[in-house]
Amino acid sequence: MKLASLPQGRDGRLIVVSNDLAWYADADHIVPTMQSLLDSWDRYAPLLEALAIELEHGAIPRKRFHEREAAAPLPRAYQWADGSAYVNHVELVRKARGAELPESFWSDPLMYQGGSDDLRGAREPLVLPDEAWGGDFEAEVVVVTGDVDRGASAEAALDAIRLVGLVNDVSLRNLIPGELAKGFGFVQSKPASHFSPVFVTPNTLGAAFQGGKLNHRLSIDLNSQAFGRLQAGEECTFDFGVLIAHLAKTRRVAAGSIIGSGTVSNRDPDGSPGRPVGEGGRGYACIAEQRMVEQILHGEARTPFLRHGDVVRIEVRDAAGHSVFGAIEQTVVPA
Amino acid sequence: MKLASLPQGRDGRLIVVSNDLAWYADADHIVPTMQSLLDSWDRYAPLLEALAIELEHGAIPRKRFHEREAAAPLPRAYQWADGSAYVNHVELVRKARGAELPESFWSDPLMYQGGSDDLRGAREPLVLPDEAWGGDFEAEVVVVTGDVDRGASAEAALDAIRLVGLVNDVSLRNLIPGELAKGFGFVQSKPASHFSPVFVTPNTLGAAFQGGKLNHRLSIDLNSQAFGRLQAGEECTFDFGVLIAHLAKTRRVAAGSIIGSGTVSNRDPDGSPGRPVGEGGRGYACIAEQRMVEQILHGEARTPFLRHGDVVRIEVRDAAGHSVFGAIEQTVVPA
Repeated sequence: MKLASLPQGRDGRLIVVSNDLAWYADADHIVPTMQSLLDSWDRYAPLLEALAIELEHGAIPRKRFHEREAAAPLPRAYQWADGSAYVNHVELVRKARGAELPESFWSDPLMYQGGSDDLRGAREPLVLPDEAWGGDFEAEVVVVTGDVDRGASAEAALDAIRLVGLVNDVSLRNLIPGELAKGFGFVQSKPASHFSPVFVTPNTLGAAFQGGKLNHRLSIDLNSQAFGRLQAGEECTFDFGVLIAHLAKTRRVAAGSIIGSGTVSNRDPDGSPGRPVGEGGRGYACIAEQRMVEQILHGEARTPFLRHGDVVRIEVRDAAGHSVFGAIEQTVVPA
Repeated sequence: MKLASLPQGRDGRLIVVSNDLAWYADADHIVPTMQSLLDSWDRYAPLLEALAIELEHGAIPRKRFHEREAAAPLPRAYQWADGSAYVNHVELVRKARGAELPESFWSDPLMYQGGSDDLRGAREPLVLPDEAWGGDFEAEVVVVTGDVDRGASAEAALDAIRLVGLVNDVSLRNLIPGELAKGFGFVQSKPASHFSPVFVTPNTLGAAFQGGKLNHRLSIDLNSQAFGRLQAGEECTFDFGVLIAHLAKTRRVAAGSIIGSGTVSNRDPDGSPGRPVGEGGRGYACIAEQRMVEQILHGEARTPFLRHGDVVRIEVRDAAGHSVFGAIEQTVVPA
């Protein structure tokens, strides 16, 4: 099934969305919010699955679903922890900062604890008070978990995945070097993240979500130009089971935790760090990578970071061309 | 007023506690949980203040309050961000890791984003599956905020402080160097934090909480021996207004966010990094500092990190000797 939240109060109200994203049915008479569903998944999910089937069959009253009206599926969450499954991204972004990639990064996942108290919808503006902060998008896959025990295995963690979606993990590139130099990770350099209008259960994704990886093409457009056409299932060094187990090594992970894949990134077939779409490559899921590749190819970064008025679009379409999670599409605005 | 949560479901149920921590009155008929209170503070706080006055006067039915029965005031929260207001602590712990203290740390607060999905009560065991992880306590002051706008000033941030309490921010010292070397901050090396049984409003603290600093003595005992007798209001380089404003620079901070002071730490009057209580000093709020000072004084660290069976106690008493927030008192146990 596909689920979303319409704006209401601090947590939204839960709806079930049709597979083609055209229709929805109210679900808040069954369970009011996405978080309360995740808190009692086994109790409510079967009832919502039944509702979803009725919605597909037109057997119940339905309303038009408009992606632009959706809130973040979880407008606030108890955890947002973002991994770095695509080591190509990590290598490129480190190169851009003049930092080496330790060999251990291929076996020990990199992860940061993000802020989760204010998560934003897919069509809300990307607020960038100061262009000099170096605003950038990062297109990623996310999962939402149920409860995960401390010390859970990667296999057990896979079983705890309840929902799959997309995120634009906004980064302020020019604040990152100074903040990371302090040694405690990101605080100011990661403002609010924006999530796809719809989150989808693994069983509805079927073959497209196997082994903790999303086997779909992720499309990123900047100002209506193709910026990335990436295969999320390829070169994904750490599947979501491994990422969740990493997080759960020393502590329990509670229902409703959102775990990110890190910026999706593909190399070129020859092993080089990819090329921009305009030069025949698959492109990138963030500006920083394209800038680093420009540096390598041309001796200078040519693509500027985000400017007010820019429009970022992130979407996954299935083989038939249908949007799976709905599109994140945001205009960059000053505060 | 003083507030606490008794165990119930995932979020506890809200109670009002008498100033002497001896009695409580149910508050969940007014607002069910601490988080829902924080979500609508202006609506519910006056009703709870009235209840607190009736409780003090014995004008309503009251029940015996037992600190050991309290859950964490917020058993899960949307944000836990921990600052480092006591730069003496930062300097000592860095020395222990062989890292320099940048001069900017005296003007630019250090802060990390912690996990907030699983917060623990004051008397719950401190679970340490492996003693080799180097378990340590960190005694800190915390505040809980209302909503704070992006870009809020330190003054505006001070006005958003709703509650004050204590935390044991548990650290796994032997996992920290490897994790921090990866550059993205703490994930595995910070397991669940434990909070004081009771959180208190700034107006009830009165003169003891002024300018975003708690002017009380913080006592830390390890296995019933005095380990720290520290003045939380002294050498606190960054008040909570500054810490919250730091967090809010690039994003909104939502109601119910918990902000930590970092480990409380005092120097000796001569400017040296303090001495253990057993040597006539004020001692420390974490083992790591005492070990570093032992290294300086004796050429070797003598105090081991936490072992199974150890008992950690953290408490603030007022001038009359009354416990303000109740005591955090935990036994270290294997998983």
